Amino acid sequence: MVNKIFMFAAIIGVPLSIIGSLMHLPSIMMFIIYCLTIIALSSFMGRATESLAIVAGPRIGGLLNATFGNAVELIIAIFALQQGLTEVVLASLTGSVLGNLLLVAGLSFFIGGVKYKRQHYNVFDARHNSGLLMFAVIVAFVIPEVFSISMTDRETQSLSIGISAILILLYVAALFFKLVTHRGVYQTEGENKHAHEETPEWSVKKSIAILAIATLAVAYVSEHLVHTFEVVAESFGWSELFIGIIIVAIVGNAAEHASAVVMAYKNKMDIAVEIAIGSTLQVAMFVAPVLVIISLFFPTPLSLVFTLPELVSMAASVLLMVIISNDGETNWFEGATLLAAYVIMGIGFYLL
Amino acid sequence: MVNKIFMFAAIIGVPLSIIGSLMHLPSIMMFIIYCLTIIALSSFMGRATESLAIVAGPRIGGLLNATFGNAVELIIAIFALQQGLTEVVLASLTGSVLGNLLLVAGLSFFIGGVKYKRQHYNVFDARHNSGLLMFAVIVAFVIPEVFSISMTDRETQSLSIGISAILILLYVAALFFKLVTHRGVYQTEGENKHAHEETPEWSVKKSIAILAIATLAVAYVSEHLVHTFEVVAESFGWSELFIGIIIVAIVGNAAEHASAVVMAYKNKMDIAVEIAIGSTLQVAMFVAPVLVIISLFFPTPLSLVFTLPELVSMAASVLLMVIISNDGETNWFEGATLLAAYVIMGIGFYLL
Amino acid sequence: MVNKIFMFAAIIGVPLSIIGSLMHLPSIMMFIIYCLTIIALSSFMGRATESLAIVAGPRIGGLLNATFGNAVELIIAIFALQQGLTEVVLASLTGSVLGNLLLVAGLSFFIGGVKYKRQHYNVFDARHNSGLLMFAVIVAFVIPEVFSISMTDRETQSLSIGISAILILLYVAALFFKLVTHRGVYQTEGENKHAHEETPEWSVKKSIAILAIATLAVAYVSEHLVHTFEVVAESFGWSELFIGIIIVAIVGNAAEHASAVVMAYKNKMDIAVEIAIGSTLQVAMFVAPVLVIISLFFPTPLSLVFTLPELVSMAASVLLMVIISNDGETNWFEGATLLAAYVIMGIGFYLL
Repeated sequence: MVNKIFMFAAIIGVPLSIIGSLMHLPSIMMFIIYCLTIIALSSFMGRATESLAIVAGPRIGGLLNATFGNAVELIIAIFALQQGLTEVVLASLTGSVLGNLLLVAGLSFFIGGVKYKRQHYNVFDARHNSGLLMFAVIVAFVIPEVFSISMTDRETQSLSIGISAILILLYVAALFFKLVTHRGVYQTEGENKHAHEETPEWSVKKSIAILAIATLAVAYVSEHLVHTFEVVAESFGWSELFIGIIIVAIVGNAAEHASAVVMAYKNKMDIAVEIAIGSTLQVAMFVAPVLVIISLFFPTPLSLVFTLPELVSMAASVLLMVIISNDGETNWFEGATLLAAYVIMGIGFYLL
Repeated sequence: MVNKIFMFAAIIGVPLSIIGSLMHLPSIMMFIIYCLTIIALSSFMGRATESLAIVAGPRIGGLLNATFGNAVELIIAIFALQQGLTEVVLASLTGSVLGNLLLVAGLSFFIGGVKYKRQHYNVFDARHNSGLLMFAVIVAFVIPEVFSISMTDRETQSLSIGISAILILLYVAALFFKLVTHRGVYQTEGENKHAHEETPEWSVKKSIAILAIATLAVAYVSEHLVHTFEVVAESFGWSELFIGIIIVAIVGNAAEHASAVVMAYKNKMDIAVEIAIGSTLQVAMFVAPVLVIISLFFPTPLSLVFTLPELVSMAASVLLMVIISNDGETNWFEGATLLAAYVIMGIGFYLL
Repeated sequence: MVNKIFMFAAIIGVPLSIIGSLMHLPSIMMFIIYCLTIIALSSFMGRATESLAIVAGPRIGGLLNATFGNAVELIIAIFALQQGLTEVVLASLTGSVLGNLLLVAGLSFFIGGVKYKRQHYNVFDARHNSGLLMFAVIVAFVIPEVFSISMTDRETQSLSIGISAILILLYVAALFFKLVTHRGVYQTEGENKHAHEETPEWSVKKSIAILAIATLAVAYVSEHLVHTFEVVAESFGWSELFIGIIIVAIVGNAAEHASAVVMAYKNKMDIAVEIAIGSTLQVAMFVAPVLVIISLFFPTPLSLVFTLPELVSMAASVLLMVIISNDGETNWFEGATLLAAYVIMGIGFYLL
């Protein structure tokens, strides 16, 4: 049922987006159409990656989910960067981190926890992820913030590029660690069985084809979405910050939200956590630094210097998640705590 | 013996407080009398809650202890709020958090640890508490501090009210989680036995009657205590900050100090921790937001924006406690570490 | 082989240092000679302490390693203090903390982890160390930073002295805890066996004699090294901050680097961790406060107020290490993460 609505929305939404943008229909109407179309397309990408995930096992499956979930955000961000909207890009990165870490994980823990009293996931993965979250946010994002206070723009730029290179290197090293040198080393018994209980919805070929087409369509729609921000911000009295952090993040992460919650509801917490936290790590350690490097080819370079509210929100979220997740166990109350933190930050960014 | 001294102090102290305030005796003398009377009354409240706690079991017992321990602070704070002393209120909230987290827990761990080499408490409770401490202080207190920098007073006020509502909701959800949906789920074997080893000092009826009378008397004395702050601050060369953070906190928490240490000495670490950390959580997640909402009916509204030294002290204490407590084990050195942190902050606030 | 090169370097280096300084050779040349001589002398101190460590067991061995590793830094710092270079002293303390926590531990974890898939060390020690790291950096270093903003220089000085006294007291208490009241309490089985597998390279007498002579020589060379900083900073375009944090720290910690990595390679992670983290703790809890107190006898007093980049770097490193180390297990990727953090901070301080 839900799938049919999404299919319908995508089939209607894509041509409507094309026609609407050619006919210069009112920006607010187009903003809504673009958002809904992206969500519908994301659901296809979500189903395609889920099909691939069943074949590939929980860890690679989570990685696929994270990658294609973030593809949408990366595409939106590149178009925003092209327009010189560096503040919107930083805001949407922040929004992605907060959205994945607090909203996606929070909803998964909460909804999964309402059904099951105690849910478990691999405690080694939890610790591995905690270390990376600390590294990415508390080290790699905090350092340029503080150091740039007494730096020139050029020096800040150099520092950002250096940090970006190290983030990408360490992200690749983390994949190498997880998939090559320590593959299966930290696996608990019976963990691999899950994957084979189900049959994928689509074949591998069909999944890849759908992923490719949907990604292209998302790219097209995203480009036009970015152009509506200014008008929408004015009309609703929202700041561009709020659009970037809350709206873009929710639209761009719709697929992850859906699949993580479904996995939690099926008690597959390893995948749910991998989607939520894996996606956060990918945004912080891959999407963000790649954007810094891509921005060198655009007129306005991107520095890894967030606003103070953005940085503090991310840092607080990471510290909260690290403490909540390090026992490899979840329940509805831990989900509620994460959601409460998200609401507090949402109110903050709305009022800002 | 000690109990008799306290009874004597209470029987002398209450009428002395009434007569002294009617006769306008010197403020400093009255300040001392008020403080001693409150401590004496607190000891009665402590014994009454302990009697109730024995009947009710360790978790509800800890909650009762925390609640009636904080009743005194709530009462003092409301009178201070009525006088428009919002700075004193924020200072006394800070003092309560620091006092419970570092002084009460520190003394318990230290004194218990001198008697027993290794003391244990429920590790699930420790983790649950850690998550809430992080949420309350690192998220709910840090966010308004940072966001308010670029906000108007009205916006800061709105943010405070929003956060207060969420804090109270999550506090109630935490009780629901602990006492309803996950009651006993994380209990380790034999934990419930403790409660029935002892017989309560007073009957339930007598305990409730004493609690009611002592609370009323505390309220009366507190109102007059608040009026002496200005003169005392001047005479001793103390800042109102120091009075709020150190003096009011020690006076207001005397009961918790005593009962937590006694419990630790009896090797009942679950109760000692519940008093110290449970009380901290209650101050941060219930007393503070309730005061924000009550303040809407007073001329000077209260915002959840602490001074930077207050906030940083609380955040540092929470991070220290989270790392020290997450193994569910204590020893005298962990107590000494907490006490050392308290002394450092005490020196800081004294010199400020 | 390596040992012979070091012996040669020391035998050549010490007289060369003496002659060079008497003949007023160019500062940059002398700077290089002094640095190499100190590294060579450090290697002797390292071998001597290792010989003592084999006799004394892993914990006291680690303490010895940390103490004589830090002796060099303490000596350099006292000469810098005498010159009134308080900024260089604070920078070199920061450099020591970062160097030990990120570079020494990172290299040990990485190189040990390349050889062994999973390496283990005493998880109780890891937690004990985590508590102390939090106390020293997040409480004792952060508090004066924040409080001093609204303090006079005199008050800041008083706060620094008070905190220094408490740091030294707690450091002594930690030794008392580890070596007296809780000696062996947290020991895992078979841990003590390691020590007796090997025979020490030198006798206890010879080790102590070499330690004494090498320490004296280091003191002599260090005094002259400090005088070259200004010229070197100018010539290379480095800030004195960069010299203090990166160069002095690497030179001063060369011995620890070498012995920790060797221990990790031999899979003796307890000693490697004790050297890296034990040394950090000794710098923060003993060297730093001792310097504050010694500085009272010098014209320029030293306050425990680091620059913001220094403090934030240390705080981020501690948080990262606490999260990475609290499971008592290491692998190459954890080492890589620590090294990546060190490189990021190195770039930052270089550009500053």
